[in-house]
Amino acid sequence: MIIKMKAGAGREEIDYVIRRARSLGLRVHESVDGDTVLLSLLGATDSIATGTFSGIRGVESVLTTKSSFRLASLDYRKERTVVRVGDVEIGGDQVVVIAGPCAVESRDQVLKTAWGVQQAGARMLRGGAFKPRTSPYAFQGLGEGGLKLLAEARDETGLPVVTEVMAPEQVELVTSYADMLQVGARNMQNFQLLAAVGAAPKPVLLKRGMMSTLEELLLAAEYVMAQGNLNVVLCERGIRTFEPYTRNTLDINAIPALKELSHLPVLGDPSHATGRRSLVAPVAGGCLGAGADGLIIEVHPEPEFASSDGPQSLTLEGFEAMMVGLRRIAEAVGRTI
Amino acid sequence: MIIKMKAGAGREEIDYVIRRARSLGLRVHESVDGDTVLLSLLGATDSIATGTFSGIRGVESVLTTKSSFRLASLDYRKERTVVRVGDVEIGGDQVVVIAGPCAVESRDQVLKTAWGVQQAGARMLRGGAFKPRTSPYAFQGLGEGGLKLLAEARDETGLPVVTEVMAPEQVELVTSYADMLQVGARNMQNFQLLAAVGAAPKPVLLKRGMMSTLEELLLAAEYVMAQGNLNVVLCERGIRTFEPYTRNTLDINAIPALKELSHLPVLGDPSHATGRRSLVAPVAGGCLGAGADGLIIEVHPEPEFASSDGPQSLTLEGFEAMMVGLRRIAEAVGRTI
Amino acid sequence: MIIKMKAGAGREEIDYVIRRARSLGLRVHESVDGDTVLLSLLGATDSIATGTFSGIRGVESVLTTKSSFRLASLDYRKERTVVRVGDVEIGGDQVVVIAGPCAVESRDQVLKTAWGVQQAGARMLRGGAFKPRTSPYAFQGLGEGGLKLLAEARDETGLPVVTEVMAPEQVELVTSYADMLQVGARNMQNFQLLAAVGAAPKPVLLKRGMMSTLEELLLAAEYVMAQGNLNVVLCERGIRTFEPYTRNTLDINAIPALKELSHLPVLGDPSHATGRRSLVAPVAGGCLGAGADGLIIEVHPEPEFASSDGPQSLTLEGFEAMMVGLRRIAEAVGRTI
Amino acid sequence: MIIKMKAGAGREEIDYVIRRARSLGLRVHESVDGDTVLLSLLGATDSIATGTFSGIRGVESVLTTKSSFRLASLDYRKERTVVRVGDVEIGGDQVVVIAGPCAVESRDQVLKTAWGVQQAGARMLRGGAFKPRTSPYAFQGLGEGGLKLLAEARDETGLPVVTEVMAPEQVELVTSYADMLQVGARNMQNFQLLAAVGAAPKPVLLKRGMMSTLEELLLAAEYVMAQGNLNVVLCERGIRTFEPYTRNTLDINAIPALKELSHLPVLGDPSHATGRRSLVAPVAGGCLGAGADGLIIEVHPEPEFASSDGPQSLTLEGFEAMMVGLRRIAEAVGRTI
Repeated sequence: MIIKMKAGAGREEIDYVIRRARSLGLRVHESVDGDTVLLSLLGATDSIATGTFSGIRGVESVLTTKSSFRLASLDYRKERTVVRVGDVEIGGDQVVVIAGPCAVESRDQVLKTAWGVQQAGARMLRGGAFKPRTSPYAFQGLGEGGLKLLAEARDETGLPVVTEVMAPEQVELVTSYADMLQVGARNMQNFQLLAAVGAAPKPVLLKRGMMSTLEELLLAAEYVMAQGNLNVVLCERGIRTFEPYTRNTLDINAIPALKELSHLPVLGDPSHATGRRSLVAPVAGGCLGAGADGLIIEVHPEPEFASSDGPQSLTLEGFEAMMVGLRRIAEAVGRTI
Repeated sequence: MIIKMKAGAGREEIDYVIRRARSLGLRVHESVDGDTVLLSLLGATDSIATGTFSGIRGVESVLTTKSSFRLASLDYRKERTVVRVGDVEIGGDQVVVIAGPCAVESRDQVLKTAWGVQQAGARMLRGGAFKPRTSPYAFQGLGEGGLKLLAEARDETGLPVVTEVMAPEQVELVTSYADMLQVGARNMQNFQLLAAVGAAPKPVLLKRGMMSTLEELLLAAEYVMAQGNLNVVLCERGIRTFEPYTRNTLDINAIPALKELSHLPVLGDPSHATGRRSLVAPVAGGCLGAGADGLIIEVHPEPEFASSDGPQSLTLEGFEAMMVGLRRIAEAVGRTI
Repeated sequence: MIIKMKAGAGREEIDYVIRRARSLGLRVHESVDGDTVLLSLLGATDSIATGTFSGIRGVESVLTTKSSFRLASLDYRKERTVVRVGDVEIGGDQVVVIAGPCAVESRDQVLKTAWGVQQAGARMLRGGAFKPRTSPYAFQGLGEGGLKLLAEARDETGLPVVTEVMAPEQVELVTSYADMLQVGARNMQNFQLLAAVGAAPKPVLLKRGMMSTLEELLLAAEYVMAQGNLNVVLCERGIRTFEPYTRNTLDINAIPALKELSHLPVLGDPSHATGRRSLVAPVAGGCLGAGADGLIIEVHPEPEFASSDGPQSLTLEGFEAMMVGLRRIAEAVGRTI
Repeated sequence: MIIKMKAGAGREEIDYVIRRARSLGLRVHESVDGDTVLLSLLGATDSIATGTFSGIRGVESVLTTKSSFRLASLDYRKERTVVRVGDVEIGGDQVVVIAGPCAVESRDQVLKTAWGVQQAGARMLRGGAFKPRTSPYAFQGLGEGGLKLLAEARDETGLPVVTEVMAPEQVELVTSYADMLQVGARNMQNFQLLAAVGAAPKPVLLKRGMMSTLEELLLAAEYVMAQGNLNVVLCERGIRTFEPYTRNTLDINAIPALKELSHLPVLGDPSHATGRRSLVAPVAGGCLGAGADGLIIEVHPEPEFASSDGPQSLTLEGFEAMMVGLRRIAEAVGRTI
């Protein structure tokens, strides 16, 4: 921790900071840079609360040097984590494509989609039974009925299922049907939920909040991992910016950045990140070109009848066509699909 | 709902959209503007899912005309809502200042702060017992112990208490101690929590998410109100932007904008919105100048020892000095404090 | 300048950085914080290019301690600058309201507006003769003809005139008619233009770019001041965020923040910052409550016929009504209007 | 143009709008949707100024249906534009990689870089002679001396040269040395400069402003094209967001989005978009996977001695290694490099 005093800070102000630091068990090194005094605080600075020094008179800024996340960091684990979901491995040589409808609507819709995406090369099935909707008047999902349909589709096609869980009290129920638990973007800092999935016996797909920094995403992963569940997969799904043409902005930098900060696998979600069907395939290609370990894609047999996210859902034909192109890019970066 | 077809859309594409709209029970008016066909869909468009039309071939864009929130809107209620918390009225002639520490730390800290802010003119006490913290390793609050201290401070000083509730299962406990339930920025779209406080017998202070639009904030209020709890107070606490000098950016436009969109009272939170003690008083003055119904301010007897948010907490002396200035501005806009 | 080495950086990496620093004439102090080595570089670090060290192997981050702007900073000048435009003083006790149409359209429009706003208490006239327009097909302003009309209005009403200059080659022409030169938000980092107005004999109104940080704004001011023109007035006119209800987001924090970073006067522009007539008066009140030294307001006798910015222009009646309220707020903060 | 009246707008308000529209030569179709009146304005709406109707009493919102850019749009030109720079074609089958130093510093530096990137497969040379710098105290480039060095490097290696032009009065000089004129992000809305390069006899590389929408970028291209210069290449170089880990956020969506809105070629700039050497290669791969027509990459023989942008510059070895991987991705998307 380094404290930069204001230009012209008086001796008594400096000494006050030094005394305060020593009272916390820290050693202090003072140096002068032009008209600025710098105090380097050494010792067990990790346990010092942010803000202990930044409000004191004469202090201009406080620079912390500690890494805020631990279990998720490359310091904790040097080799890359491979998360197993059934017999699928996320983070290994194979790029894993997860596909399915935004919301589970009917048995026919789920099974048709599951068979279709499996034929085209998807390795996992996605689908929402509990839906977080901005409006209380919008369709909120089929609930447990939807979970049963997803489980049936898994049993028929062999595709492991990932589905969203929205509250701590849903974790047990969703765990009993799904193979992987999704924490959605709006719940990325729902800390009770993070702790609850951290105690569940299933791997977790953690989506970046649309307003969250990479460090906050990794700290959210840390909440899960601190409960003992180390099987976390991160997902870049687009952040909120000023650009109105697309629903969100896929932060492509985040894919290699997360991989240099953490050992956890990283997926891309071009469906939510673009909000436009026509952009899904090229942005999916972009994610693979940048090193993503997989993709999560919304597919619907009849997008114009979808209860939600129709404009960004691919048709089965569109998904099939996209997969042909993605297979080539995966091979170009030394992976399979 | 108006559908704009792409320039050059064919007759069959247009007819497909018209048939689809009619199958949903809507009437269609077709008009031509240059080389663009516009279809006005009339009838019960409110129940049509977004995206029903936007994915169809030949469709360029879909413009909806429905207001997405109802109970929170001025259409539903023309006169301004006054929310009562104990004997305090939020939304009336008096500007209500809520003050207190970020986190409850000790009996001494809470009581000292409560008496101090009461003397200076605060009408309600704030303080966190359950703290949402970005890192799992940061101080998470005193829990029920903190609630008891807040209740004790209320009983001594007469200041009603508002405190944050972070999960549906905490609602009953917090309700038993607090006079008003706060939903924090990170939980603004935790829909289960919104529904839970909507069913509670206490008024709700709803903070805007740091990357939420005004419409999303009003829809979050709608989630609460749809459960029967109409006593909702909105709070602008700063949004996330690119500016690094301040912690967040207080959206001053939001204060009059929310008041022209809704009948609910609106507070400003200059502490979180600035993150810097030196900016709290002027930005508080800005909120009152723009018509805010009140303020929520972090105060700590010794900010440099605060377990969280020290750099943005006022001292008791600072709070007192600020109140002198705010009283004059409140009077200038025709209110009291 | 402080260099934080990566955890586990080797001795040879550390020594390389030390040698490089010494070769630049700097002294180096090495300290150890847990498993991290910190190197404090002391001496003439201001002349060291950013990035000299940040790309070197083993270096995690580089923290600079220099203040990037000088002439604009409070270190350079402790007392607040008062900028004189004709007999108007910006930055003194009086809050200065500048008002007028977005674009000069006709003699009648300018004179009518000038007389109207003067009656209501404005102290300066604004109006665009050269208009920066996003589309090449939009009205680009009357050019020199517009400047002549502004000068005529000044001569009749006594209100000094501020108008935008868009290119270095326009500076001489605009200087010959106007009393103050405006650099618009889109040109805030047009460095040739900044240098050109810095060499002109008139004060400068510098608007913050909609994508610019406060530091960048102050560095833009520094470009002007480095040419010898110290009469710079800053203006917060709204930044670009994700919120769609308003045209921009007025960063109210910026007003006191700029005043604690710099001695230059600071104005608010609620017209561009909101884009909505109904929000102009309350946000203007917010600016004064937060300590702004003045306001710049778009007024048009018939906003629905305005060639640009009609939706955010006040009518003369609206302006008059607003001024009544602002006068009270100005007095509440110890100023006149 | 469609006008949505407020719920409850009176007959006289509606009639006022209708009369105003008819006075402008437009036809009006009125329809009713629930309690909302919609007025469809038909005729020559393209020439009606934005804001003509939006400020009128009773009007809630105005929806325009015109496309704001013309020459840059796919309506104007259906086949994709190929821009020729010397014998290089941008927008054809070959992905064009442009590489070179941020700033020209010395003869040795430029020639060494030019030969190195040419050997590795770059097809054009970049380098700054006039540098837009945030601080007036930073290195501003070698000026004409730098242009001469770039021309010499072109003559030796055969690589056409692109370099930035910062002001209208520099256009003639830069045109006499360079093969392509770059308009930088900070000048994207410097309309005088856009017009000046539009009148120059060289192709233009137009970088997206860091807070500009795609529509604004295309309108900036329109400024150039409206002067007769149709040889415009667009470049996504990262937008400004809240994420602090990277310098900017590369908007990968923008690459396919611009290609569905316009016939102009689109490049990606992973150097500025990331600000970190370690992220350049994967993000470059992402751009190609998403369909970019080329890349612009900062390369320096000794990045730690670079006068600017050292932390994001690749070494020659790093560039060579990146090109091996990019060649495979280019082939996977059916192109060469």
